[in-house]
Amino acid sequence: MSIQKPSLPKGTRDFGPSQMAKRNFILDTIKDTFKLFGFQQLETPSMENLSTLTGKYGDEGDQLLYKILNSGDFLKNVKEEHLQEGVSAVLPLLAEKGLRYDLTVPFARYVVMNRNDITFPFKRFQIQPVWRADRPQKGRYREFYQCDADVVGTDSLICELEIILMIKRVFAKLGLTDYSIKLNNRKILTGLSEVIGESGREGELCVAIDKLDKIGWEKVQEELSQRGFSSASIEKLSPIIQLNQNNLSKLEFLKSFLASSETGLKGIAELEEVFGLLETYGENQSNIDFDVVLARGLSYYTGAIFEVKVNNVSIGSVSGGGRYDNLTGVFGLEGVSGVGFSFGVDRLYDVMEELGLFPESNMDRTKVLISYFDEKGYAYGLMVLSKLRGAGISSELYPDQTKMKKQITYADKKDIPFVLVLGDNEISERKVSLKDLKTGIQELMDLSTAVEKLKQSL
Amino acid sequence: MSIQKPSLPKGTRDFGPSQMAKRNFILDTIKDTFKLFGFQQLETPSMENLSTLTGKYGDEGDQLLYKILNSGDFLKNVKEEHLQEGVSAVLPLLAEKGLRYDLTVPFARYVVMNRNDITFPFKRFQIQPVWRADRPQKGRYREFYQCDADVVGTDSLICELEIILMIKRVFAKLGLTDYSIKLNNRKILTGLSEVIGESGREGELCVAIDKLDKIGWEKVQEELSQRGFSSASIEKLSPIIQLNQNNLSKLEFLKSFLASSETGLKGIAELEEVFGLLETYGENQSNIDFDVVLARGLSYYTGAIFEVKVNNVSIGSVSGGGRYDNLTGVFGLEGVSGVGFSFGVDRLYDVMEELGLFPESNMDRTKVLISYFDEKGYAYGLMVLSKLRGAGISSELYPDQTKMKKQITYADKKDIPFVLVLGDNEISERKVSLKDLKTGIQELMDLSTAVEKLKQSL
Repeated sequence: MSIQKPSLPKGTRDFGPSQMAKRNFILDTIKDTFKLFGFQQLETPSMENLSTLTGKYGDEGDQLLYKILNSGDFLKNVKEEHLQEGVSAVLPLLAEKGLRYDLTVPFARYVVMNRNDITFPFKRFQIQPVWRADRPQKGRYREFYQCDADVVGTDSLICELEIILMIKRVFAKLGLTDYSIKLNNRKILTGLSEVIGESGREGELCVAIDKLDKIGWEKVQEELSQRGFSSASIEKLSPIIQLNQNNLSKLEFLKSFLASSETGLKGIAELEEVFGLLETYGENQSNIDFDVVLARGLSYYTGAIFEVKVNNVSIGSVSGGGRYDNLTGVFGLEGVSGVGFSFGVDRLYDVMEELGLFPESNMDRTKVLISYFDEKGYAYGLMVLSKLRGAGISSELYPDQTKMKKQITYADKKDIPFVLVLGDNEISERKVSLKDLKTGIQELMDLSTAVEKLKQSL
Repeated sequence: MSIQKPSLPKGTRDFGPSQMAKRNFILDTIKDTFKLFGFQQLETPSMENLSTLTGKYGDEGDQLLYKILNSGDFLKNVKEEHLQEGVSAVLPLLAEKGLRYDLTVPFARYVVMNRNDITFPFKRFQIQPVWRADRPQKGRYREFYQCDADVVGTDSLICELEIILMIKRVFAKLGLTDYSIKLNNRKILTGLSEVIGESGREGELCVAIDKLDKIGWEKVQEELSQRGFSSASIEKLSPIIQLNQNNLSKLEFLKSFLASSETGLKGIAELEEVFGLLETYGENQSNIDFDVVLARGLSYYTGAIFEVKVNNVSIGSVSGGGRYDNLTGVFGLEGVSGVGFSFGVDRLYDVMEELGLFPESNMDRTKVLISYFDEKGYAYGLMVLSKLRGAGISSELYPDQTKMKKQITYADKKDIPFVLVLGDNEISERKVSLKDLKTGIQELMDLSTAVEKLKQSL
């Protein structure tokens, strides 16, 4: 075997101990919240048949799917003429499986395959990596985690309420305060296109107004005009774009603005019901922002649309979702309505780093290192180690007999906050010296006292 | 889009809610134990460069690697003449990346790439899926989890001690009692081949005696004879094969048996030291079985060899590992000694199922369902829900107004143990009725009393 300098595939990352501790802090917070709300975990395989994945994410998505080369003689069915026909002719001969692109399509597949065993309404969450052959860039990776929660089999708006509540709980636990849960409803967008006289064109309308944040109202008007929206229609849209009031005033304004659209009013009513449920639950509207121009892709959603943005950070959008009426139709099961959303863990991680919200110390660190001078200390240390672990305290004995300084350096580098020093004095008195590496204070005490002190500082 | 009947790739599985609860129970137990012992988590990407993976697992392993088709125009470099040369000529043109085959090679790559930032001795654990294009069969999957813990950068035998202690702790927490931690040392095997007069042939010796369990001593002798071991050598081996005593007696016997082999005696001394450390730690030798013929592949290990078998179940081997002297040599970093082991989660799962060791109820289940009759109950229920979740009780409000019977069925099917019934009486008295679905007993009480009762039953 030749010796190689190893490297990582582009767009992928290792997560070392301190990154893992931070990631786990985020993931555990999300998981706890999902469970508190009665969601149950699902995991699906990393590989799916390409027939399951292809055609679900548009042409661009199909390009971004990672395909797995068939095992064994993968060239078996490839003839020279296929080679001349090119990639699209050869692909089906070489690869039958692909890597998961998101968690939604595998979930839909699972629901269809297990429809007879599932108890509906089905509340599931799923936290797994997905893969996309995207061009790597800042904040965009080829392997990243998604954290999805969905409820299928009910159109109750309590599900929308619970999504808002879960987002609020997770953000509170993470220490994120300056953020907006942007909320809209597809029916309101439909209503808008109706009342401005461009019925059925909410798709185009939304593609344009989705860019409002980036390019401004002037440019959006130009684009709408180029798309053939009349200047009268665009003119009518103006007050909507400039809406800058609280949720209640916006709702009141839109009730009269959309008065002639049944669908639009239905959207308003749904939104009002969600706000009402929120109040009944005893939660206020802080951080919730009714955003009439929020569209998020749109083709998929049929009711509520969510997006969460953290303010004053470089990549703000960390979560999104909405209601869909036909998740499983593509696999032959019609009429399964659902609503779901997804946390972007990698983005939450970056946001937390940018805002300095992670605790300074590694949260998964070892609590205490046992250090010693000689063979006698090593033996005494083993007994001490046994007692510490028995008390549930994460602890280590330095494995090699070496200088005290080296042992302390090890503790420092591993961010271990306490050291138990075992010298002749400690051993003969059957005691321990507990040293706090931050303050430098060292105290002689009974082992049981040290155990109590370490437990309290957990 | 055409409608398809979806299916899963062969050898892969979905894990639904009740399976996930059981899997998490095992994984959390292992994770807690690793952390208690000062191991820190690492995650590496699912995809590695094929140059990192190829040649590390033997020819058969290379065959079993899943390769990922290059994105974009993957045929770009494939000419007709390559097609004629076949798979081995085309593969490097089609695929640059593969899926992780185990956790050891990515760990070695990580250590080499991060050697300057790692604090040695480095105690890492890693829990991630691996993929192998193996023929699927009972207990063998194409995607499965490995749980590895390794210490690199020290040859202290305290690491061997800790592996034994971690296995014992995990098994105790899982409720597994009837098992053996089989323990051997590569140096003893080397010594054996020396003293029977077949120096340097411990590889062949072990391939043969590895089969002892399956084919018996008679057949092993035949195989050794066919491999050219002299009958005198085979004869000398006989007392070793028939050793059936406690660890101490075996060690005593081998001390004289291996008296002429320096290496063999070194192996015995290492084993004795591990047993001594165990005693100093205050742990007994129960479930630990010195097994002179344990070999486990061998080419890799240089010191201790471990294997854990659960007795009286169909697939007993659930964990294994050992010490190696040169983990990272293949990536250009020499002299990194380490010792590690791996839990087979899928096998532990099967063993626990077979022995009926999982709790009867889903451990991740929702604790209580709030059920109600009408709009008033729904509103009151939302307030109750808010209080329950505030107290950390996993709870749900049935999302649709429907018959009580349907709500109870939902709770039953989701294995939710309690229902809070909210009727007119409860609402007007601002109380709740707590129903235990197992006993059928229903009691009217204050919400705060119900919260306390539910918390106690957690």
